[in-house]
Amino acid sequence: MSLTKYQFRAQFRCTNDACRKTYPLHQVIYSCSSCGELLNVEHDLDSLKKIPANEWKSTFESRFRSSQFPNASGVWGKKEWVLPEIKDENIITSGEGTTHLYDASRFAKDLGLKSLHVKQCGVSHTGSFKDLGMTVLVSQVNQMIADGVPIKAVACASTGDTSAALASYAAKAGIPAIILLPANKVSTAQLIQPVSNGAIVLALETDFDGCMAVVKELTQEKSIYLANSMNSLRIEGQKSISIEITQQLGWQVPDWVVIPGGNLGNVSALGMGFEMMLELGLIDKLPRIILAQAKNASPLYDSFKKGFAEFSPVTAEKTLASAIQIGDPVSVKKAIRVLKKFNGIVEVATEEELANASAKGDLYGLYNDPHTGVALAALLKSIQSGEVKQNESVVVISTANGLKFTEFKLAFHEGKIPKVEEALRNVILPCKPTLSGVMEILGKHLKKT
Amino acid sequence: MSLTKYQFRAQFRCTNDACRKTYPLHQVIYSCSSCGELLNVEHDLDSLKKIPANEWKSTFESRFRSSQFPNASGVWGKKEWVLPEIKDENIITSGEGTTHLYDASRFAKDLGLKSLHVKQCGVSHTGSFKDLGMTVLVSQVNQMIADGVPIKAVACASTGDTSAALASYAAKAGIPAIILLPANKVSTAQLIQPVSNGAIVLALETDFDGCMAVVKELTQEKSIYLANSMNSLRIEGQKSISIEITQQLGWQVPDWVVIPGGNLGNVSALGMGFEMMLELGLIDKLPRIILAQAKNASPLYDSFKKGFAEFSPVTAEKTLASAIQIGDPVSVKKAIRVLKKFNGIVEVATEEELANASAKGDLYGLYNDPHTGVALAALLKSIQSGEVKQNESVVVISTANGLKFTEFKLAFHEGKIPKVEEALRNVILPCKPTLSGVMEILGKHLKKT
Repeated sequence: MSLTKYQFRAQFRCTNDACRKTYPLHQVIYSCSSCGELLNVEHDLDSLKKIPANEWKSTFESRFRSSQFPNASGVWGKKEWVLPEIKDENIITSGEGTTHLYDASRFAKDLGLKSLHVKQCGVSHTGSFKDLGMTVLVSQVNQMIADGVPIKAVACASTGDTSAALASYAAKAGIPAIILLPANKVSTAQLIQPVSNGAIVLALETDFDGCMAVVKELTQEKSIYLANSMNSLRIEGQKSISIEITQQLGWQVPDWVVIPGGNLGNVSALGMGFEMMLELGLIDKLPRIILAQAKNASPLYDSFKKGFAEFSPVTAEKTLASAIQIGDPVSVKKAIRVLKKFNGIVEVATEEELANASAKGDLYGLYNDPHTGVALAALLKSIQSGEVKQNESVVVISTANGLKFTEFKLAFHEGKIPKVEEALRNVILPCKPTLSGVMEILGKHLKKT
Repeated sequence: MSLTKYQFRAQFRCTNDACRKTYPLHQVIYSCSSCGELLNVEHDLDSLKKIPANEWKSTFESRFRSSQFPNASGVWGKKEWVLPEIKDENIITSGEGTTHLYDASRFAKDLGLKSLHVKQCGVSHTGSFKDLGMTVLVSQVNQMIADGVPIKAVACASTGDTSAALASYAAKAGIPAIILLPANKVSTAQLIQPVSNGAIVLALETDFDGCMAVVKELTQEKSIYLANSMNSLRIEGQKSISIEITQQLGWQVPDWVVIPGGNLGNVSALGMGFEMMLELGLIDKLPRIILAQAKNASPLYDSFKKGFAEFSPVTAEKTLASAIQIGDPVSVKKAIRVLKKFNGIVEVATEEELANASAKGDLYGLYNDPHTGVALAALLKSIQSGEVKQNESVVVISTANGLKFTEFKLAFHEGKIPKVEEALRNVILPCKPTLSGVMEILGKHLKKT
């Protein structure tokens, strides 16, 4: 393998085209100190191009699920594309990535699609795609600590998946984690993961934005490192989703990728992964993207309807898809750039649409969280509108584990979500404890199936 | 690869040494029709031995990394050892197996062990190790239906992981699933997975044993296929755990494997996997096994204390480790044979011991369900007793996903489980929504870490 002959490098670069200032990755910085814009991790593509595309493919394939550290991780098996300069000994991995690409072939057939795959990012160490980015962030912090940067802790404002991932990876590394959350707005059940992982969990008498403001202030003091998604290190891990999907499809690019979006870091990462593969010759076209929003939190949909000519934040209303209940997404500029380049569209799902689509998918063997429900609903609507054609191939990104959303599942089947399709609801049937009792009920219900 | 030159075969064989009757795998049969004993799947080892051990290893390794159907599954990548004669087109897979072997290196260091790995069987499609066996059972049923065997549905009596796995795989295959459960003893939350997957869920006015009796009667009528663990097809899939662990350790056998046990099918499968590797030359020794039981349901521990001279079923008392709350395990004979052969021991965990051990493991980045807590507690006690030595290597089998046990986690940290270690409990700290408010609390709590 010729990889060892080359040195690969990466740095932060300001995403503002008029600025483009750069910073080293070991600097404690989250947005441009000149212009305030978000940063990207920029790779030295000239070095990466020295390796032929086929060698990258065979390298990624041979490392995929390798038993050996750190390549057992789908993220670190692509290290040269992620954080090329980190020392292996500082990598903190819990086997993130290499999630199954679920072949929903019966569902595809019923929808008239050529194929429908669901990338199971929620079947993961802490139960969401956030593991992909958090392994990168925590590993980089671990490297910085080893290099003598005086970091005492990592911190984020979050109520769900982000805090679970941060707390778990920090616990593995032995680095203290600090979680800021709005008091009385989040149940302990939503926070039991970081509580269990021993994070310092603080309940602030304010709302989420108030927590975000305090965590930004707190991390100005550079000994506490900010882990929220404005930190572009996380994008580098999430980018691996695109590479894995393509590899799992035999290096074929699907016609469509459907992804739910709230803060919009994930669709940015998805796009960057595909762009990097195109640039380095691993693929020769880009997929189209459907960015799926909950109708109750859909500022990007409004912008899309105006050709992305303008973007206005909204006040997000309550949605069952709680992780994307965001009205003012931090990564909106990155996301719009990606959607334009990928000839993407934005679709929305109402509460009943996301609940129905989630339940419908379950009947084919999945167990969908509400965000995957938003993505599936957007797909169903896009098929109906004719945007997605019969015989096209589709990959849906499932972002979280359905096991995190028992209440949502219960509410659906107990009839507590208004306006859903009755035929999708299933109930537990009372039955006499005898063979004849069971046979009587089966007589009615087995026929239906 | 020389594998294609050979034909591999398997059949059912009665486990009663005085009987040893055989049956073809496509026969609808769950226990010996002559003597009533359980059956095993028996492989044609002479054919399997024609392939050199190193070729099996490299075959398993290359398939483990495969993105392609059906080898993307850790079970079907070992097809010749599992169900050699099934046609690929009838395999129903959701990417089971290939779960991460979590390197708990900080935990190992604190315990003085050479290494401690946790096999994350719960980070799986339906959230437990049951997927490993259910893909085999449902695929075999799918094959039988394709061959014209008149099977209308699959059925089990279960309240938890088994019903979730059966319902999901049956939904993927498009085969009706029937779940029998005791009415008023199981919450909908425990059953929301099979309900979501569209199974026919029947609540019988009886207890679990009553449900088991009815499902056995129901499946006498051979058009409904029994999926409970007395069906030895499931063992064939679960056996892959041993092979994966060994491969992930670079084909090294650990000194110890710790596994929780209730109905005892899983430890039987674990043993059979290692025995098959030894027989076929992939390994040259067996690990020792610690079978971990909840003290409230520990009939095998009682038997072990008497050198396995006798075994008496007990009435299991309530335990947090609900999936192993079993007093009369169906696979006890298989398990005792394995434990004797592997120089195994049985250890028990009280409710507070399992809760403490689960919480302690979480502080190293895990998120343990109560059954993994039982296994970790048994390990901690075996280290304390000197049975497990310093500098030995240990693998713990984590059987289910912690996300299924939110109530257990909440109860622990909210102080609702009696007699637990206070120091392991974590609480959410109220905090003023200002930088100074946060700093004041961190001043106290960051010092501790």
